[in-house]
Amino acid sequence: MGILVNIHPDMGAPIAAALRAQAPGETIWERRDQAAPAEVEAMLAWSLKPGALAAYPNLRLLCAASAGVDKLLLPDMPAGLALVRTVDPQQHVEIAQYVLGATLRHTREFELLAAQQARGEWLRRPVRAAAQCRVGILGLGAVGRYVAAAVQAVGYPVAGWSRSVRQLPGVATYCGAEGLHQMLRQTDILVCALPLTPGTRDLLNRARLSLLPQGAYVINVGRGEQVVEPDLLELLDAGHLDGAALDVLREEPPAVGHALWCHPKVFGTPHIAAQASADTIARQCLDNLRRLRTGQAVRNAVDLSLGY
Amino acid sequence: MGILVNIHPDMGAPIAAALRAQAPGETIWERRDQAAPAEVEAMLAWSLKPGALAAYPNLRLLCAASAGVDKLLLPDMPAGLALVRTVDPQQHVEIAQYVLGATLRHTREFELLAAQQARGEWLRRPVRAAAQCRVGILGLGAVGRYVAAAVQAVGYPVAGWSRSVRQLPGVATYCGAEGLHQMLRQTDILVCALPLTPGTRDLLNRARLSLLPQGAYVINVGRGEQVVEPDLLELLDAGHLDGAALDVLREEPPAVGHALWCHPKVFGTPHIAAQASADTIARQCLDNLRRLRTGQAVRNAVDLSLGY
Repeated sequence: MGILVNIHPDMGAPIAAALRAQAPGETIWERRDQAAPAEVEAMLAWSLKPGALAAYPNLRLLCAASAGVDKLLLPDMPAGLALVRTVDPQQHVEIAQYVLGATLRHTREFELLAAQQARGEWLRRPVRAAAQCRVGILGLGAVGRYVAAAVQAVGYPVAGWSRSVRQLPGVATYCGAEGLHQMLRQTDILVCALPLTPGTRDLLNRARLSLLPQGAYVINVGRGEQVVEPDLLELLDAGHLDGAALDVLREEPPAVGHALWCHPKVFGTPHIAAQASADTIARQCLDNLRRLRTGQAVRNAVDLSLGY
Repeated sequence: MGILVNIHPDMGAPIAAALRAQAPGETIWERRDQAAPAEVEAMLAWSLKPGALAAYPNLRLLCAASAGVDKLLLPDMPAGLALVRTVDPQQHVEIAQYVLGATLRHTREFELLAAQQARGEWLRRPVRAAAQCRVGILGLGAVGRYVAAAVQAVGYPVAGWSRSVRQLPGVATYCGAEGLHQMLRQTDILVCALPLTPGTRDLLNRARLSLLPQGAYVINVGRGEQVVEPDLLELLDAGHLDGAALDVLREEPPAVGHALWCHPKVFGTPHIAAQASADTIARQCLDNLRRLRTGQAVRNAVDLSLGY
């Protein structure tokens, strides 16, 4: 029995190396065509196509090599298969870095200042008041909470919205559909840090994005599918929104000429806000495999009814 | 008797307006040639030339419209004149925003990512580990302490150096000449948040900057005179340093073609990291004038022996 790293070699090879280093006695396959399907006890993956698991009759553990599991939630998920996600606290920190960096790049006008410098212009402009930099965070899980604390540390007002009611010190919290609308109306920097579920797909559509005040900015570190991209594009072009920092898109990598990715108001990055480390992915996979083999409950199990 | 706002009208006019709004009964002059010199009881200024105060026999209060007073410390300072600085807590926040924004712009490679996007390249790169983003802060006054907390909130290790011994939770603190050398050897992002004094002038010279590890980055939100600019330039050109974010220069605005300001590795901004608000400058000036008139000690007095 062994572990199949069912991931593109660019990302899969370091994970396989970490598994081998941490568990020299385990059989590790780096390619599907190398594995004996009946021998595959655990699989590491980012995404799977429907039917992809049918070939593995003895698979008992499916580990998402990331926090998001939306691309692993198959309609034909075998009964009894344990689905777990990787929870790397370092990823929460990295997402907070990205969000704060993108926020300050926008609010402190770094692009404009760099363009001035390139033209040789020394032109002082007033600093935007913190009261006009109200950050609203969609999702108050481990990531959203870390982002909230980092935003507070640079003096910006923070609000947060979540599925269930949450209390966070110094954060105005909202939940439910009406709560979302209330928060959006008072948000200058909207941060999407939600998992992709049926309830969050297409959440940021024209109606909701239009509730943001004129000149608002959108940062997406969730999933591309949470944004109705033509609606965002329209609001950028209409001047209602000042810009967006998008680390995720529906289509990754985007097609040549992708309208949103190529938009002058969009800071587009290639899904790099955070990366779980190969060591952490390997450690949590091995720990959960050991737990299953010894009859213990797995850690970081995905709640299939919630989708995360 | 009245208050002379001895500041370029671009910045002086809002301060004069704030003084008039807060103290309608006071006489406020916005230009030197409008004031009756013998009537000037208080003066607001950024910088003064030697001899500039000789014309004002009844001047009792000189207010720096900023935290830094280095450009007001005249060799012929009249005896008995109270020199105070503006202490605007919002400025500490704004400097922390600038430092954190510049740090993340560098460590998270925002410039490189924006250039990739402009070329239509979707190219994922590993996130730089926090252990390679050790931030060292020169100066642990109100500004340095706020910066330290903001850096901690994005997970980077923080060290700080100050004239006198300081303890800060979670911050490795150093003092003295040997302490400075120790900190520099372990600093990937050097932040200068010092006041300009005889002890800090020319502090960042070739010898000290060379102690930074290969690939380090320098952020200056102190004063241009703290950096020996040809030395910094040489270390950038030699590849020892990866870059610098400079909000201050010895010459502001810089001359056309200024070698450091025009350097491709330098993110140069026009002294905008923080600005005291006109309201705060006016309020603190009026409060100190009232204190002097009623025989109380002024607030935020400058210690002339320390220079800040």
